[in-house]
Amino acid sequence: MKIGEYLIKAIQETGTRHVFGIQGDYVLGFYEQLCKSPLKVINTCTEQGAGFAADAYARIRGFGVVCVTYGVGGLSIANSTAQAFAERSPVLVISGSPGVSERRDNPLLHHRISSFQAQLNVFREMTIAQATLEDAPTAAAEIDRVINAIKETKRPGYIELPRDMVQTETQEPPPHSVERLSVDQTAIDEACREVLAMVTAARRPIVLAGVEVHRFGLQQLLLKFLERSGLPFVSGILGKSVVSEKHPQFVGIYEGAASPDDIREAVEGADCIIAVGPLITDLSTGIFTQHIDPQRVILLEPGGVTIKQCSYLGIGMKPFLESLTAALPEGLNVNPPKKNELTPFVPEANTRITIERLIGCVNTFLSDDMAIIADVGEALLSALDLSVHEANEFLASGYYASLGFAVPAALGVQLAAPERRPLIIAGDGSFQMSAMELSVAVRYGLSPIVIVLNNGGYGTFRSMMNGAFNDIQPWKYADIGKIIGAGEGYTVSKEEELPLALMAAEKNNSYPTIIDVRLDKYDSSARMKRLTENLKKRVR
Amino acid sequence: MKIGEYLIKAIQETGTRHVFGIQGDYVLGFYEQLCKSPLKVINTCTEQGAGFAADAYARIRGFGVVCVTYGVGGLSIANSTAQAFAERSPVLVISGSPGVSERRDNPLLHHRISSFQAQLNVFREMTIAQATLEDAPTAAAEIDRVINAIKETKRPGYIELPRDMVQTETQEPPPHSVERLSVDQTAIDEACREVLAMVTAARRPIVLAGVEVHRFGLQQLLLKFLERSGLPFVSGILGKSVVSEKHPQFVGIYEGAASPDDIREAVEGADCIIAVGPLITDLSTGIFTQHIDPQRVILLEPGGVTIKQCSYLGIGMKPFLESLTAALPEGLNVNPPKKNELTPFVPEANTRITIERLIGCVNTFLSDDMAIIADVGEALLSALDLSVHEANEFLASGYYASLGFAVPAALGVQLAAPERRPLIIAGDGSFQMSAMELSVAVRYGLSPIVIVLNNGGYGTFRSMMNGAFNDIQPWKYADIGKIIGAGEGYTVSKEEELPLALMAAEKNNSYPTIIDVRLDKYDSSARMKRLTENLKKRVR
Repeated sequence: MKIGEYLIKAIQETGTRHVFGIQGDYVLGFYEQLCKSPLKVINTCTEQGAGFAADAYARIRGFGVVCVTYGVGGLSIANSTAQAFAERSPVLVISGSPGVSERRDNPLLHHRISSFQAQLNVFREMTIAQATLEDAPTAAAEIDRVINAIKETKRPGYIELPRDMVQTETQEPPPHSVERLSVDQTAIDEACREVLAMVTAARRPIVLAGVEVHRFGLQQLLLKFLERSGLPFVSGILGKSVVSEKHPQFVGIYEGAASPDDIREAVEGADCIIAVGPLITDLSTGIFTQHIDPQRVILLEPGGVTIKQCSYLGIGMKPFLESLTAALPEGLNVNPPKKNELTPFVPEANTRITIERLIGCVNTFLSDDMAIIADVGEALLSALDLSVHEANEFLASGYYASLGFAVPAALGVQLAAPERRPLIIAGDGSFQMSAMELSVAVRYGLSPIVIVLNNGGYGTFRSMMNGAFNDIQPWKYADIGKIIGAGEGYTVSKEEELPLALMAAEKNNSYPTIIDVRLDKYDSSARMKRLTENLKKRVR
Repeated sequence: MKIGEYLIKAIQETGTRHVFGIQGDYVLGFYEQLCKSPLKVINTCTEQGAGFAADAYARIRGFGVVCVTYGVGGLSIANSTAQAFAERSPVLVISGSPGVSERRDNPLLHHRISSFQAQLNVFREMTIAQATLEDAPTAAAEIDRVINAIKETKRPGYIELPRDMVQTETQEPPPHSVERLSVDQTAIDEACREVLAMVTAARRPIVLAGVEVHRFGLQQLLLKFLERSGLPFVSGILGKSVVSEKHPQFVGIYEGAASPDDIREAVEGADCIIAVGPLITDLSTGIFTQHIDPQRVILLEPGGVTIKQCSYLGIGMKPFLESLTAALPEGLNVNPPKKNELTPFVPEANTRITIERLIGCVNTFLSDDMAIIADVGEALLSALDLSVHEANEFLASGYYASLGFAVPAALGVQLAAPERRPLIIAGDGSFQMSAMELSVAVRYGLSPIVIVLNNGGYGTFRSMMNGAFNDIQPWKYADIGKIIGAGEGYTVSKEEELPLALMAAEKNNSYPTIIDVRLDKYDSSARMKRLTENLKKRVR
C-alpha cells in the first residue's frame, strides 16, 4: 500500500470524515489522493482557520485532521496546535514537505525556514508525538504510532510527509492487539475504600466535573456516578457542558474568586471535593484565587488518583469511576442544591442592551440543537451564565485563550455534527481576526449564528489598562454577508430588537447570520469584573 | 533606567518610529510605556498582520519591530518571523511573558504552551539571536546584543520580556565602541586582481544584482561600480528594484528557465558573471534550471567572495566592492544591452482583460512615488515584467513565498515611507487571507491601491494539479470599503475599464482602493507557464 493511502485509511479508521486545510505544492500529491478518497477536504481562508476548525471537530468527534503545506502552512498553525495541546484536543497535523531527493546539497527551497529540521523542531514543542515519513518500510508503523498517541493522550500529533514519499509503497504492520494497560484492581479497591470513607463521612461533599471528562468520553459514566450518589456538582470554565446544566444536582460554574458568591461558597465550604479531570489553570480558578484545602480534595486525573496529597499513579479515570460507582452505598445523605430558576427574558421597551441582559435573552432563546462557541474574553465569561441543555455543546478556548477561535471552530462543529446549529458569541476584536472564515461557511452551506459583542475594541483590557491600543476600526458587521456571497445581518442596540434578530436567525438555516450588538464601551459582566480585578494586579 | 524604557530607547536609536502589534495582558505594562514614548503603536487585526507589516517596514527603513503577547501572540507570528529570517529582514520580535515570580510551582497560566520554555525554543528556529530578560542587571546588555545581531546579519531577533521585569531597573552598559571587523586588505587586493583579470579577459561579462545588495544598503555603491565598469546587469526575483530598471545597462529579470529567452541567453551565454548578494533559491532559478558554469562565476556574499570555486572567507561585500570599483580600468570594452522600449498601453475596445495586458497597463500607469508589493504566485511572476523606476520599491515574499503578505506589508511600507503610495498586486486566494488588514489602513489614514487578480482561486496550482481544493468562495471585493469604514472599489473585466479604475485610484489618496480584475480561470503569464512546467515535475 502507498504511504499516502495508508495515512488516509488510518484517518478513516478514527471515524474522521473531513480534513481541513489549504493546499500548496509540497502537499498537492497528497491532496490529490485525499480527493479520490471518501474523506472530504474543507478549504478555509487561512491555515490557522483550518487548525481551529480541526480542533473543534476533534472535540466533538474525538479526532480531527488539519493538512497543510510546508513552512508557510505549517508555521501558520503553530498557534492553533498549541491550543490543542494545552486544552487536550486530539488533532492530527499533516504537513507536506520537500521530497527527500530534493534535499541533497541543502538547497534553498521555497517555504524553507532556517533548516529542513526547523519545522519538526517547532512542532516538538506542541505535539505529543512526531514522525517524518522519510523511510518507506517503517512509514505505516510510524503513522500508527502517532495516531495511537493522539488517541491515548488527547493531545495533537505531527506527521511530516515528504512529497516524493506519497506514492511510495510501505509495509502494512501486522494487525496487533492493542496493548491494554493492566488495571491494578487491588490499588483501585484500596483507593475506592478511602474515597468512600471520606465521602460518607462528609456533611457537604461536592463533585467538580472537569474538561477531561469530555475529552476522554466519560460523560455518561460520570452522570451515572452523580445520579447513583446524588452528589451535587459544579463545572469549571473548561468543563462547561460536560453534564447538562438543567440537571437537578447542578450547582453552577466555579472559577475561584470570579465565581458568584453562592457557587464559591458551595465549593470552598465543602468538606469533600471530588474533582474529576479538571485542568487547574489560572482562568479556571479566577487567577488562582480558589481557597480549597487540599486535605478535602480527591483528584481524578488521566495520570492517576490523588487522595488528599497521596497519589495512586497509573489508575485511569475510567476504571476508577466504574469501581467507585459500583461500590457506592444506596443514597448518600445529601441535600439537592437550591436551584435558581431561569427567568424568561422580557425586553424593556426603549432600553439600551447590556451584556448581562443579552445573555439573559440568549438563555431564553437557546434550543436543544445548538452548540455554543464562545470566543475569549467577555464573550466567554458572560456565556458561562448560559444555562446549557443536555443536548448542547459548549466550546471555548477556555485555558489557552486564543482570540479568533470561535468562527473557524463553528465550521468544525457543524461539519462534525450537522444536526447542531453553532451559536457563536464573540467580541468585536476577536471577530475581526477570523470573520473572513464565514465565507467558508457560505461555500459549504453551513449556518452559524454570530453574536458580535460590539464595544469598539478589546473591552477586556480597558478596565486593566486604558489606551488607544484597545480600540479597533469599526466595521459594519451586519453587512458582511453582502461581501461573501450570502448571509443575513442585524444591528441591535435596544433590548426589544434582540429577540427579533434571534428569531430571524433561527429561521435562516441555510446561511450565516450576524447580529451586531452595540454595547456601551465600558459595559461588562459581573464575572468579568471579578476576573479583571484579579488579573489587573499582575499586569504591571 | 527601567528595562522597558531601555528597550524603547534602544529601538529609537535604530531609527524606528513605529511598533506593530496587538496587546494582551502579558504585555500590557510594556504597551503602557510604549504609548508614553515617542514610538507610535500600530494595531493590526491579527498578529501575523503585524509581523508582516514590521517585515516590510524593516525592508524599507533597515529595522522593524513587532510586539505581541505570550503564546497566542508569539506563535501567531512564527510564520512571519520565519519569512523575515529566510529573506533577511531585520525585525525585532518582542513578546511579553508571564512574570518570573508567577512561574513558581510551574502553574498552568493562560496562553501557556507545553512549558514556559516552549516559545523561546520555537523562536530559536527562526531568529538569529534570543534573550529572555529575566535577570535585571544584564537585561540592557542583552537587549544591545540582540539588536546588534539583527543589524549585522539582517535577520530577525527575539526578546521575551516577563511582565514583572518591565519596571525593574537595569544597568545601562557603558557606551562601547562598536567592534569593527578588521579588513584584510591583502586578501581583498588579491581577490580584486583575480576578478579584474577575469572581467577584462571576458568578451560577454554580466552582473547579477541580488537582494542582499538591498538588505545591506549597497545600492549606491553597486550603481557606482556598474556605471564605472559599464557592465550590463540583470536582477533576480528577490533583487528586483535594487537598481532602477530604467537604467541603460539593465537587461532584465533572470530566473533560470522561467526567464524570457533573451534574458536567459544574456546570463547563461555570459563568460563571466559577477553575482552580488544573490540568494540562490529554487524560485530565483526557475527551480534550479539555471545553466551556469561555476568556472565563470564571481560570487559576492555577506560571508565572503568566491571566485570560480575558491572562497576568500570573511571579506565583506562593501569593502570588496569599494576596492574593486577603485581598481577598475577606465571603460571596459562592453556593448550596452539592446533595450526593449516600453509600449504605451492602448486598450482594445470590448476585449476581456488578461494578466499580461493588465501588467502592460500598470506599466504605463506606474508613477515615481509608488511602491509595488506583489503577493505570491501569479501576482509576483507577472509583476516581474513591471518596469520599475529609480524611485520605486518592489517588495515580495520572493523566496519564502508566504501568501497574504502583501496587504499588511503595504501598511508597513506607507508608514515607513509616507511619500510612497503602495500598489498591491495580489491573487484572490492570498487576498482573502489578509484582506481585513485594509481596515487598519482606514484607521491610520493609509491609501494602498489593491489590484486583485480574480480567477476564482489558487490559479498557480491549477496547471499543476486540478481539483476543487484550488477554488475559493467568490467575494465582492470592490465592496469591502463599505464594511471597513472607507475605501473605493471597481470591478474590471474589459481592457478599457482598467485605465479608468487606475486613474480613479490614483486620485483617491486618503483611503484604500480595491480593483477587482475578473480574469479567465485558466489565464496565466508566460513566466508563470514556464515556472509551473518545472514545478509540476516535483509535485508527485
